[in-house]
Amino acid sequence: MRVACVVEYDGAGFHGWQLQAAGTRTIQGTLEAALARVADEPVATICAGRTDSGVHACGQVVHFDTTARRAEKAWVMGANTHLSADVTVRRAVNVPDSFSARYDARARTYRYLIHEGWDRPALSRARVAWTHCVLDVEAMRAGAQYLIGEHDFSAFRAAGCQARHPVRELQAIEVQREPGCVRIDVRANAFLHNMVRIIVGTLMAVGRGERSPVWVEQVLRGRDRTVAASTAPAQGLYFLGPSYAPELGIPTPIEPRVPPIG
Amino acid sequence: MRVACVVEYDGAGFHGWQLQAAGTRTIQGTLEAALARVADEPVATICAGRTDSGVHACGQVVHFDTTARRAEKAWVMGANTHLSADVTVRRAVNVPDSFSARYDARARTYRYLIHEGWDRPALSRARVAWTHCVLDVEAMRAGAQYLIGEHDFSAFRAAGCQARHPVRELQAIEVQREPGCVRIDVRANAFLHNMVRIIVGTLMAVGRGERSPVWVEQVLRGRDRTVAASTAPAQGLYFLGPSYAPELGIPTPIEPRVPPIG
Repeated sequence: MRVACVVEYDGAGFHGWQLQAAGTRTIQGTLEAALARVADEPVATICAGRTDSGVHACGQVVHFDTTARRAEKAWVMGANTHLSADVTVRRAVNVPDSFSARYDARARTYRYLIHEGWDRPALSRARVAWTHCVLDVEAMRAGAQYLIGEHDFSAFRAAGCQARHPVRELQAIEVQREPGCVRIDVRANAFLHNMVRIIVGTLMAVGRGERSPVWVEQVLRGRDRTVAASTAPAQGLYFLGPSYAPELGIPTPIEPRVPPIG
Repeated sequence: MRVACVVEYDGAGFHGWQLQAAGTRTIQGTLEAALARVADEPVATICAGRTDSGVHACGQVVHFDTTARRAEKAWVMGANTHLSADVTVRRAVNVPDSFSARYDARARTYRYLIHEGWDRPALSRARVAWTHCVLDVEAMRAGAQYLIGEHDFSAFRAAGCQARHPVRELQAIEVQREPGCVRIDVRANAFLHNMVRIIVGTLMAVGRGERSPVWVEQVLRGRDRTVAASTAPAQGLYFLGPSYAPELGIPTPIEPRVPPIG
């Protein structure tokens, strides 16, 4: 039996998604331990998108194989009983044995939040990036348009990125001012390591007026990471989740679910 | 010189507002230490509304007297340099020597957030209360109407409440379903100890269908705390702030400033 789970987590307390040596707290390690207690056997998960240290998720998706037979709700309630408070299973769905959380994802959607203003945020300090200035959202939007489509994103790729090639299809990017912050939503077939955060850092340089929108196109074409701006901090980034064929019934990407606070 | 400050904080890491014995971390103690470093002399603050352990604030207001002369922005930037990340001064305003953050407040506004659903929240775990059921918001709204006006709120008052009398004027109460949660906003001239949280607990009993809306009126008239429902948990409560005469230029109550996350 193959099961898919939708997982939400606060990245602040984890050394990222991926399993590491014992003693290093990761989301994968924490989740697999909880699922194993429900299954009464070891569980190994494959996720839709590995997230870095400090990055959050609203709709991460994993799949795993198990001989255990449990109702979908029993997987959710059982796992959450054993999970720490900063990670939660939101849904469990029985899927075909051929399903892969990683390879069947047609797209992935991320959200980035930036608090603007010279007053430092307290309530949302681990949930947003912070910039002193008011960003020029129109200019950021103009710059973002150059990234849409299939491109070699080498300029927006961390040095240690292990992807086999640097070509990705960026399907949509939205830059929107919300009350008290700027929201950037990005959807692509897949992302390179740190790609969203380097894109955000680069758009912020445009938003602060340090660069013009067309500079984003020059950075993209130059394919040189050292030309793009610095990587935006992890705490502003949310993995909203992958997109699958609708008939699978996996409800991702997921819009965050709590209204304005802090 | 008298100065008023607007303060935001995450209540999770504090033993409430009020100064206590050394070694107990309070918001008042933390704030006064930071302001004293900016003023180069001891600072004693009076606040608009003391909050309990775990309760948050978006627009708490304090006033203090000082011989120091600083620009308003210098108070903000200076205090925030010395404050820990979970508390921040958002604004500083020079006020007349007769101003009192406590006695000049014409009203106080609180917000309460409740996450509904059998999936436990992770990202917002320290920001909302959580109930397994879907609440009947119409019924809660109907029950809330009985509380509007000037009443003896003894039924909604903690045992240790030190107020001299139990009469308060509840000016407005709004119960609204937002995406993924129920929001309750309450405004009164002043509040008794735990009054908002006991009101919320009581409305939740109505929302779960355990009680009818008219029961809220019976609880109010009975003036017996043991009849009302249990106190709703602290982490869902936000002090949005007091209301003053507009000419003072103090921008409270403050709507929370971050868009949907978690």
